[in-house]
Amino acid sequence: MRNFEFLSPTKIIFGRGVEERVGEEVKQYGKKILFHYGKSSIFKTGLYDKIVKSLKDSGIEFIELGGVQPNPRLSLVREGIELCRKNGIDFILAVGGGSVIDSAKAIAVGVMYEGNVWDFYTGKAEPKSALPIGVVLTIPAAGSEASKSSVITNEDGWYKRSLNVDIIRPKFAIMNPEVTFTLPPYQTACGVADIMAHVMERYFTNEKGVDFTDRLCEATLKTVIENVFIVLKNPTDYNARAQIMWASTVAHNDLLSTGRIGDWASHMIEHELSGIYDIPHGAGLAIVFPAWMRYVYKHSIERFAQFAVRVWNVEPNFESLERTALEGIERLRRFFKDIGLPTTLKEANIGEDRLEEMATKCTEKGEIGNFVKLNREDVLNILKSVVG
Amino acid sequence: MRNFEFLSPTKIIFGRGVEERVGEEVKQYGKKILFHYGKSSIFKTGLYDKIVKSLKDSGIEFIELGGVQPNPRLSLVREGIELCRKNGIDFILAVGGGSVIDSAKAIAVGVMYEGNVWDFYTGKAEPKSALPIGVVLTIPAAGSEASKSSVITNEDGWYKRSLNVDIIRPKFAIMNPEVTFTLPPYQTACGVADIMAHVMERYFTNEKGVDFTDRLCEATLKTVIENVFIVLKNPTDYNARAQIMWASTVAHNDLLSTGRIGDWASHMIEHELSGIYDIPHGAGLAIVFPAWMRYVYKHSIERFAQFAVRVWNVEPNFESLERTALEGIERLRRFFKDIGLPTTLKEANIGEDRLEEMATKCTEKGEIGNFVKLNREDVLNILKSVVG
Repeated sequence: MRNFEFLSPTKIIFGRGVEERVGEEVKQYGKKILFHYGKSSIFKTGLYDKIVKSLKDSGIEFIELGGVQPNPRLSLVREGIELCRKNGIDFILAVGGGSVIDSAKAIAVGVMYEGNVWDFYTGKAEPKSALPIGVVLTIPAAGSEASKSSVITNEDGWYKRSLNVDIIRPKFAIMNPEVTFTLPPYQTACGVADIMAHVMERYFTNEKGVDFTDRLCEATLKTVIENVFIVLKNPTDYNARAQIMWASTVAHNDLLSTGRIGDWASHMIEHELSGIYDIPHGAGLAIVFPAWMRYVYKHSIERFAQFAVRVWNVEPNFESLERTALEGIERLRRFFKDIGLPTTLKEANIGEDRLEEMATKCTEKGEIGNFVKLNREDVLNILKSVVG
Repeated sequence: MRNFEFLSPTKIIFGRGVEERVGEEVKQYGKKILFHYGKSSIFKTGLYDKIVKSLKDSGIEFIELGGVQPNPRLSLVREGIELCRKNGIDFILAVGGGSVIDSAKAIAVGVMYEGNVWDFYTGKAEPKSALPIGVVLTIPAAGSEASKSSVITNEDGWYKRSLNVDIIRPKFAIMNPEVTFTLPPYQTACGVADIMAHVMERYFTNEKGVDFTDRLCEATLKTVIENVFIVLKNPTDYNARAQIMWASTVAHNDLLSTGRIGDWASHMIEHELSGIYDIPHGAGLAIVFPAWMRYVYKHSIERFAQFAVRVWNVEPNFESLERTALEGIERLRRFFKDIGLPTTLKEANIGEDRLEEMATKCTEKGEIGNFVKLNREDVLNILKSVVG
């Protein structure tokens, strides 16, 4: 087990009706805020009206910036930065899923920086300060509500890159599972794949003696696996929606990383897919993750066997732990298929013509992954294995 | 699942050698501090010298108050309050286990209050502010390093009572598993019983639809159950010590309470035992908890069956879930015995003469417990069932 620091200071406010408390929470940090959101869904569900009322009741002035797209764009981030500067904004409220939150985080660091905000995403510069952020979560998936991550897509070259610093962790996250009742099945499933990927990136580590985080990872995966089927059958099952929503936060607030280094190659490969083809991150992960597993499992058959036995209830085959390991990977793939996700590029309408380009972009800074190091050739092989 | 708020803002600094960072951490909060500790162990292990060096290197002035006993006493708390006031102390550093930390927390709220600090423990008053606290942990057990709890014993009547407020959560907890290598087997086992009790108090709830926290609880219990045997055989096994130490924090920082109400009757009954007989809290819990379970299990055979199957790997008996439930309880009792703890009052050298007194004191404010409500008669029956 490695030395670690853990600090997850986001205040979680979870349950029915909690969105009405947004005004009182925001008031502790700001008076004039940017109200940042995505497309039309918050109007349809009435969430927009509730938030506006709560902000007004608390005497908070706000400027709106909507239109965040999935795979949030750098151009809108730049617009947000200008808007904040012009209006003397002191707090950003993100109402939405991971894309909106990640966009808000980018604006928050960009406002405080004279240079090009994209520098933070290419590693050219590190942010020293950020406007405080708060979240009203509408999609359980990215875990951005309590994470130190922000992922932004630069339309100039369709680069999708991430920033990871503690100063962008939100001050609070308001989470009402009822808000997720209207999420369509496909989006629900994409969220689940994203949550599971956050756990699995941490699970596949070379670190020994990390039983506790292993078991916490397995607990999170099992919870999500069981509850997604309940939700797909009955989208308004409060408790099942709640399990998935709370799991999405814990999956990515770094509790599950304590004492270990995760892999993250699958995320990097997927970022090329969704950066270029604009598919949901979760859909891309459903394609990439089982393929990555099949490519690397021999590196530690024991760890993949543990994954199979403890997460997927595979009976261990002591004559061939390899079969056990492979059965776990296959159950993951079937699970993604069962909840309606693509597991090949073809199923996501992605052709073979840009595989080389993706492999190149993905490894342009060198090998990726920590559990197993992958070069350009490896990434290409993984992509080729799921052409369909 | 119930609505909840969750905020665990303690910065965890975990691993080999981290105690050397205490000075730089303290410096962020105070200049003149109270260095609070227990008996001689920190001198024997060299921890005292390391901390003094780190504090001096960071230019921090400190006043010492040692002598905290297990089941920390109100009289020492009062002494600490006086000391802080006289010397203009602005921060308290607790170096030790739960007793030292709980004592520090009591001093921290007492300094800011003109009345009697015991008022906070009897519910007569609620603390509005506290001096900031930091921790260097030496015993994984109480989870006080990141919790909102403090338990103090008033020698006037031997009342052991608790305070639970967010303002006493420590700012940081420095945790080096190597520091626990010298813990004797009995103290190690008592710590494990305390950790498990914190989880089990939360596990036995009437709340439905809380799979995620159920599974996190089970993960924590299984981790501790497996690793204690490794540690008892080889006290210097770093990874096993580390699993137990990190589990002790997560067991009591309220992550495992999210969305549910725990029981806590066993803790209240045990407080009478250790308040009067001054036995280790963990030893008392090893006696009380299985007895409580046998007394209440019919309230929810399903939940006890789940505990048996998922935590203790009992094969479910579908013709008699009751047998499954009872087998889980029996495995817990045997486990406590196997790690060297008492499971009857007699084994802890406690006679039958004060059972009535304990049952009365325990229920003087009314029924206890949430999973099952217990009155004086119930508490008496539970105590009588473990006379030995």
